[in-house]
Amino acid sequence: MSRAPLRVAVLGAGTVGREVVRALRDRTAELTPADGAPLELAGVAVRDIERGRARGLPADLLTDAPAHLVASPETDVIVELMGGDEPARTLIAAALTAGKSVVTANKHVIAHHGPELEALARRTGAALRFEASVGGGIPVLGPLATELAANHVTAVRGIVNGTTNYILTAMHHEGREYDEVLAAAQSAGYAEADPTGDVEGHDAANKLVILARLAFGVWLDPADVTLAAPGAPGHACPGITGVTSGDISNAMSNGEVVKLIAQAERTADRVVVSVLATRIAQDSALGRTDGVLNRIEIEAEPVGTVAFSGPGAGGAATSSAVLGDLVAIGRGLGSTWAGLPPAGAAR
Amino acid sequence: MSRAPLRVAVLGAGTVGREVVRALRDRTAELTPADGAPLELAGVAVRDIERGRARGLPADLLTDAPAHLVASPETDVIVELMGGDEPARTLIAAALTAGKSVVTANKHVIAHHGPELEALARRTGAALRFEASVGGGIPVLGPLATELAANHVTAVRGIVNGTTNYILTAMHHEGREYDEVLAAAQSAGYAEADPTGDVEGHDAANKLVILARLAFGVWLDPADVTLAAPGAPGHACPGITGVTSGDISNAMSNGEVVKLIAQAERTADRVVVSVLATRIAQDSALGRTDGVLNRIEIEAEPVGTVAFSGPGAGGAATSSAVLGDLVAIGRGLGSTWAGLPPAGAAR
Repeated sequence: MSRAPLRVAVLGAGTVGREVVRALRDRTAELTPADGAPLELAGVAVRDIERGRARGLPADLLTDAPAHLVASPETDVIVELMGGDEPARTLIAAALTAGKSVVTANKHVIAHHGPELEALARRTGAALRFEASVGGGIPVLGPLATELAANHVTAVRGIVNGTTNYILTAMHHEGREYDEVLAAAQSAGYAEADPTGDVEGHDAANKLVILARLAFGVWLDPADVTLAAPGAPGHACPGITGVTSGDISNAMSNGEVVKLIAQAERTADRVVVSVLATRIAQDSALGRTDGVLNRIEIEAEPVGTVAFSGPGAGGAATSSAVLGDLVAIGRGLGSTWAGLPPAGAAR
Repeated sequence: MSRAPLRVAVLGAGTVGREVVRALRDRTAELTPADGAPLELAGVAVRDIERGRARGLPADLLTDAPAHLVASPETDVIVELMGGDEPARTLIAAALTAGKSVVTANKHVIAHHGPELEALARRTGAALRFEASVGGGIPVLGPLATELAANHVTAVRGIVNGTTNYILTAMHHEGREYDEVLAAAQSAGYAEADPTGDVEGHDAANKLVILARLAFGVWLDPADVTLAAPGAPGHACPGITGVTSGDISNAMSNGEVVKLIAQAERTADRVVVSVLATRIAQDSALGRTDGVLNRIEIEAEPVGTVAFSGPGAGGAATSSAVLGDLVAIGRGLGSTWAGLPPAGAAR
């Protein structure tokens, strides 16, 4: 390749970041698109340089100042894998403002600041890609925007949060109560110390907002996603926090399972979005999606219903989507929404 | 949009062609990519102009001379939906030679003449896109080449032929013999008058060769796909032609079903490909893929196993992939393999 390499800075070296850094160091040739620019690791921002070094990250590329990597004339593309709201939002916005393309797995920032970041990216022409923010390594945002671009999407539904699905699956198989299973999931590393974002449905709501952007062309407000409903299992508590072993055995006696279903449907005048503990047939494809698997179904015309499934989380799986987005930027494919019209705002 | 429209000629107005023509007439605005050129229907080649007119095709755009549409200075993109070997192969080659991009659903031509057509497209810079050739409207080739581009694929496996899956599903549920079910499928329109291509596994083998091009970077010879094996249900007859109700009830008594499984696996030095009637767990995702549904599983590092499922055939579903490819050409995204290295030939 005679093209100048794209110098990539990775912000955050957690489970996903470490996999991305390793691939950028070990598999440069493989990651060079035939019709685009090669990728070159230019820096890694970590919280603690000493710990990063101890974990085998390249000592000469480590910094604890992510904003310097964003501002540096020696970087072209920023990979944001820190998660959470700030400073991720400001760093992404700064990179786009500087005309640098951004790849992120940060569903919170994209769902909460989507309209502002899309406007910014469109203004500067920098690409913003976020395939990894939904479904880990499962291709779904790209296919919605490209292979399914000619469709009129009527509904998107799925299981998009691995932690809650792991907990519900364990409650179903083991007959134990929510608190007990949550504690076990936390010690096994399947749930975070503060599990609120997962178990109350906020993480799934963020992913649903992102799916809805690609499927329906609008940025919805995550606060508008219904997280509890009187009729749903869980007694009107958000997400899965109110689901009891009684709810689950009631469902079982009816051939059903309880799943946290994220759903967005187009009605005549708006898009209705919810993330609800839901009783569904055990025998259905969603009912059989167990453990940390994710499954996303798209209903659209003319295609009908297509589904995407696989591991929805994990460092290795998620790095697949981050690296795929980097290759796409090397090829000049633009943002995840490229090809679709600018989003309307439904907020 | 200020860009000049891409003038599209559709060759063939069967079930898929009619849907494509209808969308190009009725949904032009929707099909205009935000970052690309609009599409304009410039001609439709049919076998019988009178019949085409009677079926509501636009009379002023009809011709029975597809080669004229390919050669015309008034067309920019050729959509080949005639199927079969000749004249489709020659028409596609002529279009690419003239620098016109081509979209096709023709798995036979792509699988049998892939190396020659890829070389031609690369030489003239015309795009060749064929998402519709595998899995109908299910996005799978694009995701393999784009979202999964950073992966090392180790295996591709799936149910990719709706006719045989319909027959096997009916044999399973109704306990009837192959010949009887095939005849019923033929009168219901799920099998062709000459079903050889489907039931002997050739159609699935063609799709497997195309998947292998994207997954493994080589064009395999369809003749090298194993279609019968002594140990498989079906007594060493190709495809599903030897499967008896006894095979199916034997499988059932073991919690298994018989499915026609297309599989390509990378070994140390080559890619091993087969399309075989196979006993698999009834309880597995492939075992539960019934009727005309398709399901394709990709095993790759680092992503793990991801799966794509949905309607694998039908005019409406398949038109989704054809139209998606047209939009992609309007956006200048290049061939289905763009981004991947040129294929090696393993023939």
